[in-house]
Amino acid sequence: MSAWVLPDHIADVLPSEARHIEELRRDLLDAARCYGYELVMPPLLEHLESLLTGAGTALNLQTFKLVDQLSGRMLGLRADSTPQVARIDAHLLNRSGVTRLCYCGPVLHTLPSAPHATREPLQFGAEIYGHAGLEADIEVLTLALDCLKAAKVTSPSIDLADARLVKSLLLGQSLSAAQLALLYAALAAKDSSELASLSRNLPPDIRQGLLTLVQLYGDVSVLDEAEKALPPLPGVPEALQNLKRLAAHLPGVQVTFDLADLQGYAYYTGARFSIYAPEASGALARGGRYDQAGAVFGRNRPAAGFSLDLKTLVNAVPVRPLQAAICAPWRSEPMLAAAIASLRSRGEVVVCVLPGHESEVDEFHCDRELIEVAGLWLVQAI
Amino acid sequence: MSAWVLPDHIADVLPSEARHIEELRRDLLDAARCYGYELVMPPLLEHLESLLTGAGTALNLQTFKLVDQLSGRMLGLRADSTPQVARIDAHLLNRSGVTRLCYCGPVLHTLPSAPHATREPLQFGAEIYGHAGLEADIEVLTLALDCLKAAKVTSPSIDLADARLVKSLLLGQSLSAAQLALLYAALAAKDSSELASLSRNLPPDIRQGLLTLVQLYGDVSVLDEAEKALPPLPGVPEALQNLKRLAAHLPGVQVTFDLADLQGYAYYTGARFSIYAPEASGALARGGRYDQAGAVFGRNRPAAGFSLDLKTLVNAVPVRPLQAAICAPWRSEPMLAAAIASLRSRGEVVVCVLPGHESEVDEFHCDRELIEVAGLWLVQAI
Repeated sequence: MSAWVLPDHIADVLPSEARHIEELRRDLLDAARCYGYELVMPPLLEHLESLLTGAGTALNLQTFKLVDQLSGRMLGLRADSTPQVARIDAHLLNRSGVTRLCYCGPVLHTLPSAPHATREPLQFGAEIYGHAGLEADIEVLTLALDCLKAAKVTSPSIDLADARLVKSLLLGQSLSAAQLALLYAALAAKDSSELASLSRNLPPDIRQGLLTLVQLYGDVSVLDEAEKALPPLPGVPEALQNLKRLAAHLPGVQVTFDLADLQGYAYYTGARFSIYAPEASGALARGGRYDQAGAVFGRNRPAAGFSLDLKTLVNAVPVRPLQAAICAPWRSEPMLAAAIASLRSRGEVVVCVLPGHESEVDEFHCDRELIEVAGLWLVQAI
Repeated sequence: MSAWVLPDHIADVLPSEARHIEELRRDLLDAARCYGYELVMPPLLEHLESLLTGAGTALNLQTFKLVDQLSGRMLGLRADSTPQVARIDAHLLNRSGVTRLCYCGPVLHTLPSAPHATREPLQFGAEIYGHAGLEADIEVLTLALDCLKAAKVTSPSIDLADARLVKSLLLGQSLSAAQLALLYAALAAKDSSELASLSRNLPPDIRQGLLTLVQLYGDVSVLDEAEKALPPLPGVPEALQNLKRLAAHLPGVQVTFDLADLQGYAYYTGARFSIYAPEASGALARGGRYDQAGAVFGRNRPAAGFSLDLKTLVNAVPVRPLQAAICAPWRSEPMLAAAIASLRSRGEVVVCVLPGHESEVDEFHCDRELIEVAGLWLVQAI
């Protein structure tokens, strides 16, 4: 009887959670719409090279592959919609001005990204293209916070980082891809001894910079420390200034910094943020700047954005009450049908009790019923 | 430069159509909710045997297969959500009473189902379980019509059939699966000469019944003809009576009958309907009764339902106007931010014009702007 046990890390979403996810979905899409972000729906399947071009090894490993019977070519199931939306901006819309896009749909992962993670997140995201200034970063971060507020996340906190710091330090050094991956892993794990060992052949100021970086986490004072301690290589002062300006636009929100943070996808090129809440162990939303996202599609436009998983979010916010319903009998009567249609057109849930099912469990918590009084169908409390 | 050309019959949905599809999606889910249909979200991926058990060869051929790296087992990408929802009703919810479920999500097809069909329909559907009487058929058909009405389909017409007619005629005959498939194809194509050839070894009354069936299409008078012309085998009179009762519950809608119609999936067991509109060449929605859908999952519950593709529907209904937006300048001013937040909280779209982008094309048709008047931020017509 185990044939219809679902694969590990794949689950059905049952009514009460599905209803909540649908409500969150609408709230988030409405928030993005009110900011002027236009909805797009990229496909679940693409040619593999289109899906993975420039996206890095991590996304490749996360992507399910299959063969197209129409063409014999390899297809991939999207594991992340961000590169798809960059493709739409670069290749399809091809606008010269600022373009704001948002999306909401399932993505699939070959392996769960965390011990209890789903392999089918419902990814919502928003992206702004065509503006290199920090205003775009501020807008997407503000929108991300508004989305979480709409979802009733009460105490979000933001962790800021900048992908340019590590990149500036390592620019021009002789490192193989394997060495770089080990260095990134040591930075992410804040493993100073491993880092010291891996960086022993780098110039002393770079080595010291990397070792300093893993100590640079905490409140805004971290930025002043960084200005003093990091070598003034191109990109470093700009990154620190940007982080200060970003933080200044987030009044009333707890902001921390983690300058060695390298989590997430490989495409970030500037300021990055992760938003946390006490109700969730991992980040609820991640975003930042990734200016080269469209380059592989022929247009190198500035870009910033964020994404989140609605299936993670729904578990971090309070359950919303179910709308109470109205019970109605099932009869072939035009007056009853008209009364039911009128109630439904005003948004009421009217459940018809089919013949023979009068004593069943009321899954809808009907608090009212339609009854006939002197030839009229009226709503009465139960 | 063709790497990011999408696979055939796969497409991005761009802003204006995506917005329209999202609006239709909400209208349809709201219509189902007002009837008491609870939303569920079955997964895109399942073990192949769970996805295809009892579903027939057609669905198998339509289903993309891939290997689960976690278990080494074969997975299928759902090509139809109806069997998944039957599994949820039978195996997961396991309620004894009437259960109403609805869903909306993408499905994927290995091959397009028609020359211009997408391979990634956005399937919306509703199902009612646990009631064998015609009231359930009437409810889902009424809901399907209400959904199309909400989508602004102005003149729907309904084609009715009943899967029991052909099944009753063929019950107990010696036919191989291959012969049966050929017979079904001849019936669907209304190919009398092929049918005569294929049925030459069947008893004369059965053979004559099949040949009569392909003539039985048109208005309600077809049912009276059928009562006279078809052999009174078990199931035949009930099917014809059901069709009469169903049609009687559809005042003001054009109803036709096609008693040899066998289109769609193999799981229908009773009355079936297809809804058409002048704006679309194929059916906009299909549904009916499929009482054995849950049997393979251990619970043989009566079931009726329907489904439709939102990407087909959106092309058959009038385009909805874009909500006009308000332009606002980008400045770090708390009063401006408060004015923008207030407008957005009331559902207005406020697009901030980022520095340097003041003369770009207005994709939003901004008809108003936020300007500062005597220290106050006010909305003025452009």
